[in-house]
Amino acid sequence: MTAPAPRPAVVLLSGGLDSATCLAIALDDGFTPIALSFRYGQRHGIEVESARRVAERVGIEHLVSEIDLRTFGGSALTDEIDVPKHDDVNDLDDTVIPITYVPARNTIFLSFALALAEVRGATDIFIGVNALDYSGYPDCRPEFVDAFQTMANLATRAGVDGAKPLTVHTPLIDLTKADIIRRGVALGVDYGLTISCYDPTADGRGCAHCDSCLLRAMGFREAGIADPAQ
Amino acid sequence: MTAPAPRPAVVLLSGGLDSATCLAIALDDGFTPIALSFRYGQRHGIEVESARRVAERVGIEHLVSEIDLRTFGGSALTDEIDVPKHDDVNDLDDTVIPITYVPARNTIFLSFALALAEVRGATDIFIGVNALDYSGYPDCRPEFVDAFQTMANLATRAGVDGAKPLTVHTPLIDLTKADIIRRGVALGVDYGLTISCYDPTADGRGCAHCDSCLLRAMGFREAGIADPAQ
Repeated sequence: MTAPAPRPAVVLLSGGLDSATCLAIALDDGFTPIALSFRYGQRHGIEVESARRVAERVGIEHLVSEIDLRTFGGSALTDEIDVPKHDDVNDLDDTVIPITYVPARNTIFLSFALALAEVRGATDIFIGVNALDYSGYPDCRPEFVDAFQTMANLATRAGVDGAKPLTVHTPLIDLTKADIIRRGVALGVDYGLTISCYDPTADGRGCAHCDSCLLRAMGFREAGIADPAQ
Repeated sequence: MTAPAPRPAVVLLSGGLDSATCLAIALDDGFTPIALSFRYGQRHGIEVESARRVAERVGIEHLVSEIDLRTFGGSALTDEIDVPKHDDVNDLDDTVIPITYVPARNTIFLSFALALAEVRGATDIFIGVNALDYSGYPDCRPEFVDAFQTMANLATRAGVDGAKPLTVHTPLIDLTKADIIRRGVALGVDYGLTISCYDPTADGRGCAHCDSCLLRAMGFREAGIADPAQ
């Protein structure tokens, strides 16, 4: 009996709750993940360190690419604009695109994932986008991901050679935050290693008042699970 | 009488012949170009310097983004693989993807252009891809560009707000190298500022034997024009 051939997959890993769950799902699906994170002029380096710990915990390869979006500006996550703070998750307005939206960020991240996938001979990319919690971000919607996949298959050797087409997996796309947490806990994700905050404290703890902290807290509350990062 | 409002456009500028012509066309079309170049772990920095001179000559803004594709490897342009050399343009084989193909390069470049366009409120991107001379590169084909444009309009605020959609212009896509040169000369492009070589000499001259040098020489020959960079 021979072991099945490894199936490499590029998994975008931010250090947050969603992408850690996405990684666990890729592993559970039998892939050999190559995790890819970015330093893109974020306000803080804590999330890349969280990603490193998440990847290390499951013993997979982890690459960090440097890209500088600060040259362009335009987002509270990379600029000197203040991150909006709220007291309650109900104060969030999902009918407008948040100021924390980074222009074309997921397009850029997926493009790097595509390059890495092509170099490594991987035909699978995982991204932990979620259409419910982040409906304000245009590049978290299923129609965006579908269009990226179509484009990606025309951009690469697959489109010329007729090789196995590339698939962009979005296992979290229709899940609520509570669903994601339940799924991750069932798969053994240690959420104590993750950080979701847009504006963490100097000692690496969540601020508890940005959109991302409020959505995370609501998710754990709804799942009936204590957040180990708190 | 008031002057017409400026129409900003992001123009990808490599320092080569094609993108310099593309920039001249964008200017001739009445756009106010913002030129965007990349340091992406190329073998040489000469092309970014050429891009700077081309942008300076026409007095437009020029941004250079740093992205490191060397982490991924996989191309003779970023790796320590030798650039193939030939004696004659007829030795080029356009039925296979050249080793100088950089995985997902145009996807990554266009993604950065998309981010910059969104931040600057531009709805037009120019890229000097050409389907005839570079038929071996999957990401130079019209169907790739069309798919990118579709994806881009779903990735950004335009896709949510119903703002003016983004257009990716490829004015060179169906031109021969000789056509491109004739068009550029008519628009006053100084090709002496451009560099097309994949593997230039230490003093910044073309090697005369890589695919790109051979295609450039053939283009000038067919156009009946002397190459001012020689």
